[in-house]
Amino acid sequence: MIQALGASQGIAIGKAFVLPHWEWELPDQKIDVADLAKEFDRLYEGVRRSKTEISQMKTELDEAVGSAEASIFDAHLAILEDPVFMNEIQGIIQRQYKVAEVAVKEAIDHFVTMFDLLDDEYMKERALDIKDVGNRLLKHLLGAPEISLPEDTQPFVLVVRELSPSQLVHLKPELVLGIVTMVGSPTSHSAIMARAFGIPMVMGAEGKLEQPIGTGDLLILDGETGMLQVDPTPDMVARYTEMRRRQLAEKEQLLKLAELPSVTQDGVTLTLAANISSLKELEAALGNGAQGVGLFRTEFLYMDRMYFPSEEEQFEVYRSAVQKLKGETLVIRTLDIGGDKQLDYYEMPEEENPFLGFRAIRFCLERKDLFKIQLRAILRASNFGDVRIMYPLITSVEELRAANEVLAEAKRELQEESVPFRADIKPGIMVEVPAAVAIADILAEEASFFSIGTNDLIQFTLAVDRMNEQISHMYEPFHPAILRMIRTVAHAAKAQGIPVNICGEIAGDVNALPIWLALGIDELSLSAQAILPVKERLLRSKASDSRKLLDDLFRCRTSMEARELARQFYAGAALAPGANPLI
Amino acid sequence: MIQALGASQGIAIGKAFVLPHWEWELPDQKIDVADLAKEFDRLYEGVRRSKTEISQMKTELDEAVGSAEASIFDAHLAILEDPVFMNEIQGIIQRQYKVAEVAVKEAIDHFVTMFDLLDDEYMKERALDIKDVGNRLLKHLLGAPEISLPEDTQPFVLVVRELSPSQLVHLKPELVLGIVTMVGSPTSHSAIMARAFGIPMVMGAEGKLEQPIGTGDLLILDGETGMLQVDPTPDMVARYTEMRRRQLAEKEQLLKLAELPSVTQDGVTLTLAANISSLKELEAALGNGAQGVGLFRTEFLYMDRMYFPSEEEQFEVYRSAVQKLKGETLVIRTLDIGGDKQLDYYEMPEEENPFLGFRAIRFCLERKDLFKIQLRAILRASNFGDVRIMYPLITSVEELRAANEVLAEAKRELQEESVPFRADIKPGIMVEVPAAVAIADILAEEASFFSIGTNDLIQFTLAVDRMNEQISHMYEPFHPAILRMIRTVAHAAKAQGIPVNICGEIAGDVNALPIWLALGIDELSLSAQAILPVKERLLRSKASDSRKLLDDLFRCRTSMEARELARQFYAGAALAPGANPLI
Repeated sequence: MIQALGASQGIAIGKAFVLPHWEWELPDQKIDVADLAKEFDRLYEGVRRSKTEISQMKTELDEAVGSAEASIFDAHLAILEDPVFMNEIQGIIQRQYKVAEVAVKEAIDHFVTMFDLLDDEYMKERALDIKDVGNRLLKHLLGAPEISLPEDTQPFVLVVRELSPSQLVHLKPELVLGIVTMVGSPTSHSAIMARAFGIPMVMGAEGKLEQPIGTGDLLILDGETGMLQVDPTPDMVARYTEMRRRQLAEKEQLLKLAELPSVTQDGVTLTLAANISSLKELEAALGNGAQGVGLFRTEFLYMDRMYFPSEEEQFEVYRSAVQKLKGETLVIRTLDIGGDKQLDYYEMPEEENPFLGFRAIRFCLERKDLFKIQLRAILRASNFGDVRIMYPLITSVEELRAANEVLAEAKRELQEESVPFRADIKPGIMVEVPAAVAIADILAEEASFFSIGTNDLIQFTLAVDRMNEQISHMYEPFHPAILRMIRTVAHAAKAQGIPVNICGEIAGDVNALPIWLALGIDELSLSAQAILPVKERLLRSKASDSRKLLDDLFRCRTSMEARELARQFYAGAALAPGANPLI
Repeated sequence: MIQALGASQGIAIGKAFVLPHWEWELPDQKIDVADLAKEFDRLYEGVRRSKTEISQMKTELDEAVGSAEASIFDAHLAILEDPVFMNEIQGIIQRQYKVAEVAVKEAIDHFVTMFDLLDDEYMKERALDIKDVGNRLLKHLLGAPEISLPEDTQPFVLVVRELSPSQLVHLKPELVLGIVTMVGSPTSHSAIMARAFGIPMVMGAEGKLEQPIGTGDLLILDGETGMLQVDPTPDMVARYTEMRRRQLAEKEQLLKLAELPSVTQDGVTLTLAANISSLKELEAALGNGAQGVGLFRTEFLYMDRMYFPSEEEQFEVYRSAVQKLKGETLVIRTLDIGGDKQLDYYEMPEEENPFLGFRAIRFCLERKDLFKIQLRAILRASNFGDVRIMYPLITSVEELRAANEVLAEAKRELQEESVPFRADIKPGIMVEVPAAVAIADILAEEASFFSIGTNDLIQFTLAVDRMNEQISHMYEPFHPAILRMIRTVAHAAKAQGIPVNICGEIAGDVNALPIWLALGIDELSLSAQAILPVKERLLRSKASDSRKLLDDLFRCRTSMEARELARQFYAGAALAPGANPLI
């Protein structure tokens, strides 16, 4: 049994199919000077075909799992349009008289080596993208076939050295029980896609296996823990089969809770809303019983395309969303671009510290034209249901006022155009910058609600980029400073009588639930998968119990004490018995 | 009159000397395959000579202005040892049979274009470094002379397209009244060096001049405001000559304050200590009347070299420093490496957000071996005066305890070795992470003093990288959140009875002085240049007046209100009259 990286949840049990390592055979003749133009034509034709194919894959993937995942292929298209990459290839053809295939291969090797040299996770991912695109281009130049998987076969566990997004998109989920890769990381594009497809996956098995896996070997993998077992004992197969059955059964059980009201044993209501970034995700969330949307990440409307979305396009999406919600609330966060979220068609300045950079409301207040288009679309949609506006990354009262001025202008325009909208719409803000916590009492007087964005707040407060492997262990939601700051914001909201919500991953941690209950948080905004596990816990909790915990929690001096205290709270007698007590 | 970028303070008035734009003439013959090895030898010889020359320049500069500035040339040495750069050159020779000069030129152009394409200030600086090194290498290959300035001449204002650090180091400060560059930024290596030499400089004049400046044109420039005037009227020359005289006279006047005790009109003492990064800077600070050192940035001991400094080397520096201080306090901050401060000889992982990354105490707790060497050196120096230890970037109680464990081990070792040190030495911490503010009451029980590192604290609290031009205007020390956080920390320190200091640029802002007086701050730690202007203001202030201001200040909802209130406070009647009332 080896321990690799868990990349996509779920247990898979089945026989291995090992994808052979593919090597291209490259022609070694030189080209004649007179044929240079012809060779360039071959190259351009290969690029054209590659682009068409990538666009097709993107469309397929968009339909299958949604636009956020499909946008991965925009990065691939961008490489084929990158002058640095293309000049390198053309330079090798022109100066060294090599055929296009060889030039492409050498350019790939050049950039991959360069990016790998940088020893940076992000750059390694870019290297993988270049390899993926480059191989596609080679395929079109050489006329070689797509790497193919067996079709007439039993379902199998795919074993591969590394898996590119374009390979993954061609897998038939009904045939692939699970995936094992030798290299790669759970933050890669492929891992994101495996999760979207719901295929269990472990990565980074290289150097941990005693001998290579062979096609036909029986495998068990657990995509949550990263466990991989080659040739398991019958006993182990039985154990994991049972575990797999239980996981699926639990999922089914949880689904039955979707329709119940989300209220504690002692009658305290905590709204469980959803985080979404597309209409497709909204459907998944509603299926899991989401009560409204607490966070619509509109930046994905801007990311999956080649130009800014028009007012009309945005309006259609917002209107659809609020109509699907049938009277429940839709909180639309205005454009939160920049930082790690970039647009293909709008170049943002490169930044040394993008998280502390030009993003979100800062960008919108610089580009008020674009901001106003979005606000107009949201205002128009407000005529069709309970739509609320939320500004991200608010750092000062001045910013909130400046954003509200643009909103007032949008309202004035619509009024003049006699376009209907809810006139009393008053925006809320994300509280995710430490400064906003420190002046929460001031902001509470000028905002209509707070949503505590814990992911960013924790990063700024602890000065920890949680994507940075070297220090990600320091990213700690139970740090006493974080608990105190959440309390400060909750108290400021209560004092002013405005609602206060929690979004960010900590909202989905069932051990944090008593904190929300004790502080009187009004709503959690959760990913679709997190809603039902939290609800299950909520239905068995008593808000009155949780207040006892809070006093103890705020006496903790370290994160570990606090985390452990919260964990033990429910492990103790605080929960009503039974998995689904209300069914 | 044009408005360029102020890069180095001071007024210069004089005739222009325009440095001609240098173009190399490159041989265009190809080399024979048989001569490849000979060509490589030429290249290596050129590299060897360039390195020797750079090392010499570095030594000269170190003696002239100090090691921090001299370390600029380490970046140049590193380029000549960079396999990517050298492989590019060798590849062009080997594959294209070009002579070494041409290969170097093409490699420079390749990397400069690539870095420029990235459209990033940092990378543009790297491009300039590569150009500088590359030109030096070309000079040695071609046997071309160093670009030279007139020697037998009146002092002049140097006008140049762009200025590299190696050009700047060869200027004779007594001949160069000031510098105007067409391109470049005040954060560049050249600007840092101009400030170190005290040469007034404006940068980025390109595109702003109606016609090019000619040698002999009369110029006036103000390196503080960025003002540049070509062919000024006699009236203007008179005005700026007077301004220049006044600036120099004021400097002289201030110097007379150095020996006075730093106490307000109503008898409140505020210690004015220095920030230093070398023994040389300590001398400058003492010349300006520094009362001890509030912040010794030890990372510069680690940066100006090719390997980690030994315990003995560090001990010598710390001991010298504390002995020069003759009984005054020396606060040594332990290694604050990472973020924007890198070591040439120790590769840190590339980070997406280095400010939120693996740095300072985080690095030291990962590399306890290196940390302990430094702590041993500091402990040994504590035997020679009032030495204190300060940990940077403390984010949690756990971290403080972990650092103290390493310290305890260092003490144990020294005890066993019978090496003398102050046994009761108890470390203080930098409060510069928002989390540390939120738990200041807890930390105050386990630290012996606080030093509020306002630069980082403001960056994290406002989520603003102040080096990022796009948003640097948001970096706002008078933000109500910052003022509140400073108050929180001061109160926590007072409640526990430990001293609280302020370091960071805001400490040098004379308008912030009443805040420190009202909050009972014990010490400011300032750059050598800031000590006397703050002292002048302090000598004329009353602490009792400042308490009135504080109440008003904490009622402000916006930064602008707060900043304006503080500015007007001293503009009002709060100051004792006269420039130097006690003389």
